[in-house]
Amino acid sequence: MAEITWTEYQHRIKEESPVVLIPVGALEQHGPHLPMGTDHLIPTAISRLVAEEVAAIVAPPFNYGYKSQPRMGGGNHFCGTTSLDGHTLSIMLRDVIKEFARHGVRRIAVMDGHYENMMFLIEGIDLALRELRYEGIHDLKILRIEYWDFTSNETLTKVFPDGFPGYALEHAAVMETSMSLYLHPHLVRLEKLPDDPPADFPPYDVYPLNPAWTPASGVLSPAHGASADKGKNLIDEYVQRIATALKDEFPGI
Amino acid sequence: MAEITWTEYQHRIKEESPVVLIPVGALEQHGPHLPMGTDHLIPTAISRLVAEEVAAIVAPPFNYGYKSQPRMGGGNHFCGTTSLDGHTLSIMLRDVIKEFARHGVRRIAVMDGHYENMMFLIEGIDLALRELRYEGIHDLKILRIEYWDFTSNETLTKVFPDGFPGYALEHAAVMETSMSLYLHPHLVRLEKLPDDPPADFPPYDVYPLNPAWTPASGVLSPAHGASADKGKNLIDEYVQRIATALKDEFPGI
Amino acid sequence: MAEITWTEYQHRIKEESPVVLIPVGALEQHGPHLPMGTDHLIPTAISRLVAEEVAAIVAPPFNYGYKSQPRMGGGNHFCGTTSLDGHTLSIMLRDVIKEFARHGVRRIAVMDGHYENMMFLIEGIDLALRELRYEGIHDLKILRIEYWDFTSNETLTKVFPDGFPGYALEHAAVMETSMSLYLHPHLVRLEKLPDDPPADFPPYDVYPLNPAWTPASGVLSPAHGASADKGKNLIDEYVQRIATALKDEFPGI
Amino acid sequence: MAEITWTEYQHRIKEESPVVLIPVGALEQHGPHLPMGTDHLIPTAISRLVAEEVAAIVAPPFNYGYKSQPRMGGGNHFCGTTSLDGHTLSIMLRDVIKEFARHGVRRIAVMDGHYENMMFLIEGIDLALRELRYEGIHDLKILRIEYWDFTSNETLTKVFPDGFPGYALEHAAVMETSMSLYLHPHLVRLEKLPDDPPADFPPYDVYPLNPAWTPASGVLSPAHGASADKGKNLIDEYVQRIATALKDEFPGI
Amino acid sequence: MAEITWTEYQHRIKEESPVVLIPVGALEQHGPHLPMGTDHLIPTAISRLVAEEVAAIVAPPFNYGYKSQPRMGGGNHFCGTTSLDGHTLSIMLRDVIKEFARHGVRRIAVMDGHYENMMFLIEGIDLALRELRYEGIHDLKILRIEYWDFTSNETLTKVFPDGFPGYALEHAAVMETSMSLYLHPHLVRLEKLPDDPPADFPPYDVYPLNPAWTPASGVLSPAHGASADKGKNLIDEYVQRIATALKDEFPGI
Amino acid sequence: MAEITWTEYQHRIKEESPVVLIPVGALEQHGPHLPMGTDHLIPTAISRLVAEEVAAIVAPPFNYGYKSQPRMGGGNHFCGTTSLDGHTLSIMLRDVIKEFARHGVRRIAVMDGHYENMMFLIEGIDLALRELRYEGIHDLKILRIEYWDFTSNETLTKVFPDGFPGYALEHAAVMETSMSLYLHPHLVRLEKLPDDPPADFPPYDVYPLNPAWTPASGVLSPAHGASADKGKNLIDEYVQRIATALKDEFPGI
Repeated sequence: MAEITWTEYQHRIKEESPVVLIPVGALEQHGPHLPMGTDHLIPTAISRLVAEEVAAIVAPPFNYGYKSQPRMGGGNHFCGTTSLDGHTLSIMLRDVIKEFARHGVRRIAVMDGHYENMMFLIEGIDLALRELRYEGIHDLKILRIEYWDFTSNETLTKVFPDGFPGYALEHAAVMETSMSLYLHPHLVRLEKLPDDPPADFPPYDVYPLNPAWTPASGVLSPAHGASADKGKNLIDEYVQRIATALKDEFPGI
Repeated sequence: MAEITWTEYQHRIKEESPVVLIPVGALEQHGPHLPMGTDHLIPTAISRLVAEEVAAIVAPPFNYGYKSQPRMGGGNHFCGTTSLDGHTLSIMLRDVIKEFARHGVRRIAVMDGHYENMMFLIEGIDLALRELRYEGIHDLKILRIEYWDFTSNETLTKVFPDGFPGYALEHAAVMETSMSLYLHPHLVRLEKLPDDPPADFPPYDVYPLNPAWTPASGVLSPAHGASADKGKNLIDEYVQRIATALKDEFPGI
Repeated sequence: MAEITWTEYQHRIKEESPVVLIPVGALEQHGPHLPMGTDHLIPTAISRLVAEEVAAIVAPPFNYGYKSQPRMGGGNHFCGTTSLDGHTLSIMLRDVIKEFARHGVRRIAVMDGHYENMMFLIEGIDLALRELRYEGIHDLKILRIEYWDFTSNETLTKVFPDGFPGYALEHAAVMETSMSLYLHPHLVRLEKLPDDPPADFPPYDVYPLNPAWTPASGVLSPAHGASADKGKNLIDEYVQRIATALKDEFPGI
Repeated sequence: MAEITWTEYQHRIKEESPVVLIPVGALEQHGPHLPMGTDHLIPTAISRLVAEEVAAIVAPPFNYGYKSQPRMGGGNHFCGTTSLDGHTLSIMLRDVIKEFARHGVRRIAVMDGHYENMMFLIEGIDLALRELRYEGIHDLKILRIEYWDFTSNETLTKVFPDGFPGYALEHAAVMETSMSLYLHPHLVRLEKLPDDPPADFPPYDVYPLNPAWTPASGVLSPAHGASADKGKNLIDEYVQRIATALKDEFPGI
Repeated sequence: MAEITWTEYQHRIKEESPVVLIPVGALEQHGPHLPMGTDHLIPTAISRLVAEEVAAIVAPPFNYGYKSQPRMGGGNHFCGTTSLDGHTLSIMLRDVIKEFARHGVRRIAVMDGHYENMMFLIEGIDLALRELRYEGIHDLKILRIEYWDFTSNETLTKVFPDGFPGYALEHAAVMETSMSLYLHPHLVRLEKLPDDPPADFPPYDVYPLNPAWTPASGVLSPAHGASADKGKNLIDEYVQRIATALKDEFPGI
Repeated sequence: MAEITWTEYQHRIKEESPVVLIPVGALEQHGPHLPMGTDHLIPTAISRLVAEEVAAIVAPPFNYGYKSQPRMGGGNHFCGTTSLDGHTLSIMLRDVIKEFARHGVRRIAVMDGHYENMMFLIEGIDLALRELRYEGIHDLKILRIEYWDFTSNETLTKVFPDGFPGYALEHAAVMETSMSLYLHPHLVRLEKLPDDPPADFPPYDVYPLNPAWTPASGVLSPAHGASADKGKNLIDEYVQRIATALKDEFPGI
């Protein structure tokens, strides 16, 4: 959307009723081998590929997300991790959705790349829909997507031939590293891949965060075994299955 | 910053005490010939070039800005223009600055590309510095830059051989079009350049906006005469003079 | 805490440095067979039992929680479900934690009984700790507990002899019904147990909610097989393991 | 409401159009003889008794209230007193009222037990009604009740045979102690009744609070003379007169 | 303060440590005979007279206050009554107090002329003191004054020879009319004095407001018997007693 | 508005559909020779004079404004300058406009006297209009006026016979001093007029403010040459041209 003119945009909104995809990520440590923008770079890339499949429009990404949590992304104490308050993220999404609705957009998909964002995006969507009802707009439909929920068991088996350790530890690990190798290999420092064993968290959180719980590298489980091929597998599946979901929910695109 | 790892970032913050540049823009109609992201694309490009001069780090840009005003950017009624509430923008900047301070950053420059953002960025900076004082951090120094304030009279004369119509009407006009031709010519639709005469506003604002005040194209004064050469002139001057200002204010970079 | 006098409370805070447990729940449909207060009744009951083990103090429960989500609790469209905005919940917890800190409390555990609350409680804790730092208080330690994370595999096997369908569908289902039968059987209408098959959600969310996704009863998977005995098993395990965790994190209690 | 199922609740809302009573209180020191929950325990008890008279539904109580003031409740400096910011309380009530309206409730009574809450509850009601107007809901009617305003002069004479010292000093004094002796005698420590003389405040407030203004016990006037009988007198009158007021304002219940 | 220069102000703050008086009022119907600014005109006038007694500085008044309530000021449904949300009023006072503290002021008195403001001013004061603590400022002392609390029984007897009907109905009635006749007789329309009988409210509130509860004139009890002489009596007493209170609390002024 | 009764006000709103003028200013240092209220005193005076021309109603002024900026008003570090957070100012204006709309007012002009307020007033207007749309009110029209934008070139030439240094340095300088000499000469200390040379700012801002950038007097350019005659010239022109603009935009007044 940032690269087209408003007249082109307006024409497409009026003529095609396209889906607008909003990639939301974070600026967060991803180990010594992945770029800090990983959580917005990946959903932005997926959004662009999906957009090609279903003639969608990709909004400029949300580059900052909610505070990293130890059991999800290592914790917000790392240098470099740059996070918003929850309310800030929610009202930012609220504002943007309301503007798209003003333009005439009635089909939106929020594409999240950072697990900690989830509830604040839900809240932002709810606040936007509430205020749009006040304006008399009732026909905006929004999908909220976390791309990893589209991983099939077949693909998991391919990516983790020795067994999937679970999404909980998939931070800067095999999946994100593989996708990064496929999407932007020049930003991956494979030689820096740490050898930390998987993190082992107790079944509760402690605040202030205890830095000792997270491996010093920030990586929750070893990324050895990552490859561009696996990344391609994942990305291809996400793009294809998300495109299908969009077609199901938004007939005619 | 999004493209480096946290360990590289941490190393630079500790060793070099670099400036972190935060490009802030908007998603806003820029006539039928310029991309809607113009206001974040240009300050992001300038930030990257400045960063090369002074070994700064560029933070991910703020892609959305404050509501477009008729006498500044044509007005917020245009399709495509996607704006935040003022408070949203302020607290977003507040949050990000506070995080950079937590990392150990003590030198920040906010690089604005959208005039309407000005006061809300000032407020965001003030709120961040206030809360950082509460944390006991008193030595963070922040520059707030609107790049066009660095245009010299010599350059103005070169760019506008027939006389400068004033910044007030410089929206999607000669300066922004020239810089876009220089920085990302593939995004410029020169064939769509409108022929509207310059906008003529009364000395006050009316709300709700009166769309008739703004030319239908959204362009406040004709962009004829724009060229990549002029754009290079402007960009070169901004980069060189902003780099000098940074060196003045942040000795040792 | 509501049932003791301030002088008793003050004495205990000074002499024993006890843990203060804050039960947080919701007012939410739990099928035609469980009371709407289930999500605060259960963590309040667990908190009281844990308090007996570790001489903790139980704060008055938070009776209202965040908006029910289809894939977590059936969705917020049900009659009876009564939810707070996310920001409201966060700042309510922030305010209460700050007050406890003013009293001299330095050990808190937030005991959540409603999954949707998670991120907003995290934010409330973070906001409280931030403001307490501003006051110069750095030694408050807070545990955040979702009691179901303390279920052992052995217990899961006992409770689900035919295999555990996963936490995702455990809303008003076997676990909550069993615990309710054990804790407050007079509030359970076993004869109203619905026969809906398990809910089958796509891997994304749609807003506004599609009521057709959730079984009309509000129950995400069948609760047949629930029993007070299973409830006792679960509660006993939670109490014992949470008490152990508190002892580990707060030595000397 | 917390103890019934959503299907029972829905049925009653549809068939009976009942009043929903929202008890609001505080967690606040009430001298060395009354429990800290006094301000929510009493209005919750009154609400339940009123509900029996007029077939109302009692919502889960608000257990935390606004900051205690010296001339109203002794002051917020006491250990144990746990208060919310005013805005927090207002928006919490706003959120809950809006949800009840969504359920189809059109008759609400807010039953306050803590004087300091008054204006923030008024604001919460006003904010809720405003947003409900935005949703097109105009027929919700809300009563705001402070139960002590229903004390008749006859009862005052019975309770204070030596003359009523005025509501200003009625904190943890004869009225609240009597009602507690009637409603939950096991929570009253009569042997701890302090002998402080009545508080004597100047006609203004000072901030930060001057703890010396309030008796060290937190009791504003002596509670000697309190009895369960007097408590029954008060409660009976409140229940009967509030039930009458509800019948007057909500015909047909 | 608005009429002196900053250098004069700075000199006085440094040399005299004077009290800064903040008059807070409302823009609210006051019957057909009193100006709508009555609630800020009177406390501003009292503040100026007090300032002469104790060499205080009067800050510019807060001209808008919280929403009028039926049992306090007739209700907010009247045309002309112009009110702020409670949170707006609180944070406005918070901001102003913090600025005075930054100037070096350590003695403030908030002079309220509108009963509905009370709790929101308390909150504003509390928020300011909290944030000032974060800045390390602990020695700011604030008095909160409602001038009518300084009425002696002797004066009440003089003003109401037939007996005082109570503060509850004193809106646009004898006391405010008398003070207005004394302070600004040209703004009083005595010929418009309404003959409504005193308002008779039930012991609870109803929302949305029932306009029938309040006399159509907006006057809660008859103002007959008001006179400039009585107004002088009241004002003289307020000025003298408030000056004394200030001297008691702020030694050396 | 503060000096008339609500019945007079209501009558005028109904019969005349008058414009309501809202003067907005600041409490800000204006050099050693001008009163700190200059920024609200001048627009209030202009508003009163305009009101006589077009039978408008003047609302009570906003006496406090947004934080002073070095390049606009000298900076917020001066003693005496008393500013609001941006959000506070915005929501205060929002609240007041919404109330006027409730009264039936459909014509408003916001008369700003403090440049730093601009964007926050725009936001307040936008928030008010948005919420009024939610109430179904679509016909409120608001002008936003900065009076200095009505200065003609002829008048500039008269006031600055040696050439106009530009609005950027016009703080407490020739224009404001002249108008003050004309409007309220008793508040001007001409003998204190400082001799500082004009301020010379770099083309960017630095935060925290660098006090050395601003002349110690707080005056951005010399006010020598100011006179009551020049002030009359300016005021007369503002009143006449603003009245004309109001008549153009609000036919029939």
